[in-house]
Amino acid sequence: MTRLGEMEIGSAITLEAVMRAAKLIEGSVIRTPLVRSPTFSRMAGAEVYLKLEDLQKGGSFKVRGATYKVLSRREEIGPAGVVAASAGNHAQGVALAAKAAGLPATIVMPVWASMAKQEATRGYGAEVILAGESLRESISFAQKMAEDGRTFIHPYDDLDIITGQGTIGLEILEDLAEPDLVVVPVGGGGLIGGIASAIKAKRPETRIVGVQAAACPSALEALRAKERVVVEAERSIADGISVKEIGEANFPLIRELVDEVVLVEEEEISTAILALLERKKVLAEGAGAVPLAALLASKIKIAKGNEVVLVISGGNLDPPLLERVIRQGLLKNGRIMRFSACIEDAPGSLARLLSLVAEGGGNVLAIHHARGERGHSLFRSRVNLEVETRGPDQIEEMKAALLAAGYEITVRS
Amino acid sequence: MTRLGEMEIGSAITLEAVMRAAKLIEGSVIRTPLVRSPTFSRMAGAEVYLKLEDLQKGGSFKVRGATYKVLSRREEIGPAGVVAASAGNHAQGVALAAKAAGLPATIVMPVWASMAKQEATRGYGAEVILAGESLRESISFAQKMAEDGRTFIHPYDDLDIITGQGTIGLEILEDLAEPDLVVVPVGGGGLIGGIASAIKAKRPETRIVGVQAAACPSALEALRAKERVVVEAERSIADGISVKEIGEANFPLIRELVDEVVLVEEEEISTAILALLERKKVLAEGAGAVPLAALLASKIKIAKGNEVVLVISGGNLDPPLLERVIRQGLLKNGRIMRFSACIEDAPGSLARLLSLVAEGGGNVLAIHHARGERGHSLFRSRVNLEVETRGPDQIEEMKAALLAAGYEITVRS
Repeated sequence: MTRLGEMEIGSAITLEAVMRAAKLIEGSVIRTPLVRSPTFSRMAGAEVYLKLEDLQKGGSFKVRGATYKVLSRREEIGPAGVVAASAGNHAQGVALAAKAAGLPATIVMPVWASMAKQEATRGYGAEVILAGESLRESISFAQKMAEDGRTFIHPYDDLDIITGQGTIGLEILEDLAEPDLVVVPVGGGGLIGGIASAIKAKRPETRIVGVQAAACPSALEALRAKERVVVEAERSIADGISVKEIGEANFPLIRELVDEVVLVEEEEISTAILALLERKKVLAEGAGAVPLAALLASKIKIAKGNEVVLVISGGNLDPPLLERVIRQGLLKNGRIMRFSACIEDAPGSLARLLSLVAEGGGNVLAIHHARGERGHSLFRSRVNLEVETRGPDQIEEMKAALLAAGYEITVRS
Repeated sequence: MTRLGEMEIGSAITLEAVMRAAKLIEGSVIRTPLVRSPTFSRMAGAEVYLKLEDLQKGGSFKVRGATYKVLSRREEIGPAGVVAASAGNHAQGVALAAKAAGLPATIVMPVWASMAKQEATRGYGAEVILAGESLRESISFAQKMAEDGRTFIHPYDDLDIITGQGTIGLEILEDLAEPDLVVVPVGGGGLIGGIASAIKAKRPETRIVGVQAAACPSALEALRAKERVVVEAERSIADGISVKEIGEANFPLIRELVDEVVLVEEEEISTAILALLERKKVLAEGAGAVPLAALLASKIKIAKGNEVVLVISGGNLDPPLLERVIRQGLLKNGRIMRFSACIEDAPGSLARLLSLVAEGGGNVLAIHHARGERGHSLFRSRVNLEVETRGPDQIEEMKAALLAAGYEITVRS
């Protein structure tokens, strides 16, 4: 690929094309709100706004590009409709897009795809086929199905898809005329390519910053190498942007239009998910929370009072995973105390310990009482407790009360 | 109280007053979005929109009324500022309102108020005083403080507060010209009184339906008795609307302007909280979820294709409680399987059992291995397992596989 070729692709997505896309998908997708966050503004010393694509149809931005693709290429799509492979948001996006166009959709999902995602995709009217042990195998399967007359819809490496995602950029500028900075998650590069194309065309002085999980830095590595590279990816809570190689159509757009790409760690992403939930009542999936993670972890330079837009790209976080994020956060913030105490192995001694915990205002979540540990007297036993508290101060008070009452305790976290 | 008196109070909140309130609080509160929900629309056979007051400053609508009160009565408020009593949203609303007006605020909270709510209220610049074992005691304490020159701000029984909450009604009509039905949570009656005043003045044919938790039916009982009554209240997840007696200023508004009040059960509220989170990525507290609970439980008559607005009044649900709602939902939807199995008390037998679970795709969340249960052979022991699954189908498959392998199992939920 030559530098000249890249420039051509980069200029291929014009403002007019994105405006045409916006017109075409109007009514088929949700015009999502841009909402100010006073709390994150105070934390960042800036004016922070959230573009809430988690409220989008299907729970993520994916329906925009897919709908534009399907509606703009409708004449070329045969009666067999469209086919795509995905374990996540792209599946729902394509299913919804095909429904809007009145076309059949087939979605190939890896065999391990969650029931919730399968059900959601079927609920949008698509046929779901479970094929492939990995997403790569599912994609091969879908591409084979495309040979029989179905139109294959790529999740990001497609100029129509990128153009459709760009409609988010237009909406941001409608709601906030002069943002200083727009922060966007980067996986394959469809979302940021589209948004950057739209915004830089209308307001070149707005900085566009991409954020990736440090577990899968494919865009950053590509920018450093000045060519696309395949990175080693570790498992990340931001599974929606775990794409090992940036798209071919996407890379030149990023090189040309994106000011900077920064990385965030897994714990920073979890913290951002919990902060969005606790402070703004917004459920974001890992990929959707990386812009806030970058902001809270000071990975982005922001001048005081700058207007900053964080693109919360999606909210499809499975409840079991959300449960773990909350639990981890409660432990980290001292809202749960885990400790063990030695008690006499005699009637009433466990009740006495629990009375002390109750007096301290602790609410028992779990308890395990074991006898006969090595190194212990035969007449003593160990109790492991998990107690809900109001915070670190209450933990300290309870520790002091237990020690004062003569208990040997070990705090585990 | 006479019917004439009621009419006078009822007509005291004019459309002009609400419009003046909207003007006065503009810029101090967030103009919240009205967002369509395709999923709930499909479920209800109607066009369902959510008015997202969980995105409001402080996480609930309370800041609207409080800000209008403080800004419109600024001349009458002395240098000691305002005082209020609350364990929840009103605390944060008054703190934010006082901040917007540049006045000091004192918030009296019961001693058991959560650290999170205390911290949030302090974070908005208010002084927090812990006084009172019950909210009633905190209110007495705050009213005493008001005798020393502070202005007491009531959470709902105040025409200015009601007028401020009415700005939500105006915004709904700006975004959706002709709603057929607006569904509103009812606690003390401030929110519904304001919204009904604004909407009925502009569009009398729009039906206004109030929703209460069956655990605390103060408005419904008052309507039946044709006078305010104090109800027995049970503990509810919708603590924000657990008000035992409807407000004096509020009752005539409800009698005059509200078409119907319906009740929802605790489990219906939990289901609605989880549905909002899973399907729309919106965190609602119990009180904020009751309109959806009423819709999903078919408590409200809706004609096909009706335009329905659900007022999601707030999102301040503490993470530990949210964790329990999610856990309960996972159990109910078959995403967690709890069972016990008997195994030989010999090396390798637990590993064999767990291998079978793993082959079935189950992910072990918790395990408890106990020996020497009554009625069991000395050489057998019982294992209790909690396993994460993809859903009911996988549970059935796993059960069949375990039975086929000769295990005696008991499924617990």
